[in-house]
Amino acid sequence: MLPFKTLIRTDKSLKLPVYQQIANRLIGLIQEGILKPGSFLPGSRVLALQLDLHRKTVIAAYEELISQDWLEAVPRKGMMVATNLPVIRPRSFRKVLQPYGEATAFSFHTPPAAPVMAPYPDASMPLVINDGFPDVRLAPLTDWVRECRSVIESARYHKLLMYGEAAGTTALRKEMVKYLSNTRGLNITADHVMITRGAQMAIYLAAAMIIKPGDYVIVGSPNYFFADLCFEQLGARLLRVPVDGEGIDVDVIETLCSQKKIRMLYLITHHHHPTTVTLSAARRMKLLEIIRKYKLPVIEDDYDYDFHYSSAPILPLASADHGGNVIYIGSFTKSLGLSIRIGFMIAPASFVAASAELRRLMDLRGDNLAEQALANLLADGTIARHLKKSNKIYRERRDLLCELLQQRLGKAVTFTPPAGGMAIWLRFSPKISLIKLAEKARGKGLRMSSGEQYHYGGKSVNGLRFGFASLNNRELRAAVAILESILDTAF
Amino acid sequence: MLPFKTLIRTDKSLKLPVYQQIANRLIGLIQEGILKPGSFLPGSRVLALQLDLHRKTVIAAYEELISQDWLEAVPRKGMMVATNLPVIRPRSFRKVLQPYGEATAFSFHTPPAAPVMAPYPDASMPLVINDGFPDVRLAPLTDWVRECRSVIESARYHKLLMYGEAAGTTALRKEMVKYLSNTRGLNITADHVMITRGAQMAIYLAAAMIIKPGDYVIVGSPNYFFADLCFEQLGARLLRVPVDGEGIDVDVIETLCSQKKIRMLYLITHHHHPTTVTLSAARRMKLLEIIRKYKLPVIEDDYDYDFHYSSAPILPLASADHGGNVIYIGSFTKSLGLSIRIGFMIAPASFVAASAELRRLMDLRGDNLAEQALANLLADGTIARHLKKSNKIYRERRDLLCELLQQRLGKAVTFTPPAGGMAIWLRFSPKISLIKLAEKARGKGLRMSSGEQYHYGGKSVNGLRFGFASLNNRELRAAVAILESILDTAF
Repeated sequence: MLPFKTLIRTDKSLKLPVYQQIANRLIGLIQEGILKPGSFLPGSRVLALQLDLHRKTVIAAYEELISQDWLEAVPRKGMMVATNLPVIRPRSFRKVLQPYGEATAFSFHTPPAAPVMAPYPDASMPLVINDGFPDVRLAPLTDWVRECRSVIESARYHKLLMYGEAAGTTALRKEMVKYLSNTRGLNITADHVMITRGAQMAIYLAAAMIIKPGDYVIVGSPNYFFADLCFEQLGARLLRVPVDGEGIDVDVIETLCSQKKIRMLYLITHHHHPTTVTLSAARRMKLLEIIRKYKLPVIEDDYDYDFHYSSAPILPLASADHGGNVIYIGSFTKSLGLSIRIGFMIAPASFVAASAELRRLMDLRGDNLAEQALANLLADGTIARHLKKSNKIYRERRDLLCELLQQRLGKAVTFTPPAGGMAIWLRFSPKISLIKLAEKARGKGLRMSSGEQYHYGGKSVNGLRFGFASLNNRELRAAVAILESILDTAF
Repeated sequence: MLPFKTLIRTDKSLKLPVYQQIANRLIGLIQEGILKPGSFLPGSRVLALQLDLHRKTVIAAYEELISQDWLEAVPRKGMMVATNLPVIRPRSFRKVLQPYGEATAFSFHTPPAAPVMAPYPDASMPLVINDGFPDVRLAPLTDWVRECRSVIESARYHKLLMYGEAAGTTALRKEMVKYLSNTRGLNITADHVMITRGAQMAIYLAAAMIIKPGDYVIVGSPNYFFADLCFEQLGARLLRVPVDGEGIDVDVIETLCSQKKIRMLYLITHHHHPTTVTLSAARRMKLLEIIRKYKLPVIEDDYDYDFHYSSAPILPLASADHGGNVIYIGSFTKSLGLSIRIGFMIAPASFVAASAELRRLMDLRGDNLAEQALANLLADGTIARHLKKSNKIYRERRDLLCELLQQRLGKAVTFTPPAGGMAIWLRFSPKISLIKLAEKARGKGLRMSSGEQYHYGGKSVNGLRFGFASLNNRELRAAVAILESILDTAF
């Protein structure tokens, strides 16, 4: 008999069950030719003794190998290594396997160039100032995994997982109706809800349904860069309307509408990206009139509505008399810890139905399991609790960062404390080069943007979004201290 | 003191922890006005006694409420209901909340009409013949949830979840290189791998990068309907080339290439949809010559490569000397139980980089958590074990269904047993109306397609794909018995 005690080592501290460790090792021994086809393995009792394991564990390993066709149970003789091994070798029709290279033999369309994105952290770079991400350390991920497990342990999960609608899982769409009514006063049914992959897919879908190449689309100046790029990819011509302290300039929108056929308006009603400004109630009133008068399709991107700290958020345009012109967009991605990307689009039912058809061509549908888990977390109040907790923490972080910036970098920067969201829009005095600042910060273990992604139409703003939500008090102090030390010496 | 024993009921059998149940109920009492702002709650010891719970549970509930601003801990006096309650009421700027309706005020583009999809099951309809779905009861979903938990319990998970690349999680792209080399002989690096949401997103992305409105695209006749629709949505003119027992007719492709500028060829090399035919080695050789000669961009959709039962699969075109023209597409969706939609596209590095830019505009990126979990399952062999097991089971189901169809429905149907995949392409004799058959089956608790989705260019084929993989032996027998009883009496 082979020295199995030496050949098979198991480790109970590993995640992989011991019987699978044994099975894997036996497959290895067969593949290496140490166990020959047609040879017999020791009985489970004997092998268990040798390996100092319970006999049931060895039996489980043997059963696994039988189910995979590596072993055959021969009556009265025991476990035989299969003579017809289940090794699938694909049939080759060419001797040489050709490597893939850098270039295609054909030309292809290059999408509009994206700006340099939020910096990536690495092990040696513990501190990152991002564009306004949540703190995923606060996200209810354990609850989410618990719900996933509970779904797949339920009796009818296989029907839930096998079939699904492109507009989203029914249970989630129904929960969304309650949630959006409670938080935003939206008067809708499940037919008005389309579940998407984050707010970004909702923007892409809605825009692709509306825009044709050459169409005029109004956006803010400045504006969220991925929305701009998305509209440009679809062939739109962008008309930029200034954003001031009350939000986008509604009078300029009206003038543009009176001058030419405007196909669509994109706006961010709370905590505008990048400026963090919230559109005032007075401008919302005025805008509703314009929308109705010109039958102007509007994408109302309200991605950060759930994170508001000063006073209260304002009801969306979508809750008012917009005459069937407003497509309302939001997201749970920032509540669920960024990796689980679930957003939504609220629109007239016929628009939702057609968007679902388009979405099927893009990726068939969402992940039913994740959508069902989110529905459960909405229903049992986990999301509401999480939002309340994180709003409190983010408000404190915002206040701390405002204080630190004022006290430590007051001469170099200007900003208005945002009423919500996850970032401060920070403008630097003209004599400070953000490229130089970011480079020096990197040398001190702090990664930050050098601001290029906020240059719109080539116009430099010498500013960046300082995301405060993902940094705790210690990290905020450390980041500002690094910036202070550089500004004191280098400029 | 209020009668808390009556007011607060807890249930240990619920999923929600008891302390959260208490906290939720107290919030309810505050919101209902039963607990007034400024009033005091009993001490934790007193309340614990009343509720017959451990004191720690009550303390946890109180702490939860403090963190949510519902309570304030007043030194030496105890827990006070906050005077400034954390209820956010959005500011309204219009009295009337307007309901969303059916119609938009503006016109929009309607995507090409999709065929009636695989039928949805409901509680009263236990049996479904689908288009070729896997059996999600076999999927390694418990392993997947375990990996998700293990990722979010790891020390650096927050960096992993917060930042990610549009082309996919690095760990998964690296695992894909090994996996595709082992199973398909692909000679690639991580730069050639783009992770997508299922094969469908890979098809959409690749096609959107290549096709311009008016371009000629060659597809099979018949062909996978969602690929057809996707190309039509992008403005392509489809040229249909017959598919026979050896796959798509390569000579016809060559003739077309010599006659006009063909922009792209889409083909399914294993278990073609809907016919289940595998493209022969001889035709692959011939096709490679054509591809190189005409620099013809090819989407090689090999979505079902991992499920092959008779002999061995054939190496993909992508592994041979295609001259940088082949975009290779596959999927893990069928291994992971359909709901977790992860697919991939293999292409020259420059094409992958540009596709990642386009994908960012569509939905920013994939779910890092799901991608990392899949990487772990590939690395520890779980996916390979699952494939081996399910291939064995699916082969048995295919063989059983072929036998049942031959014995029970032999006069009414014709088919060729497929070498792999998850469905049999079943053609009915002309005198049988599939619409009538499906309707009668429905009355007997069996849902099935009436075949319209397989009509291509208006041409009826009087056939359907009989998905065998998701039905166990008992279910296969039951489904065929119902069909037999209808065919015996109704036709």
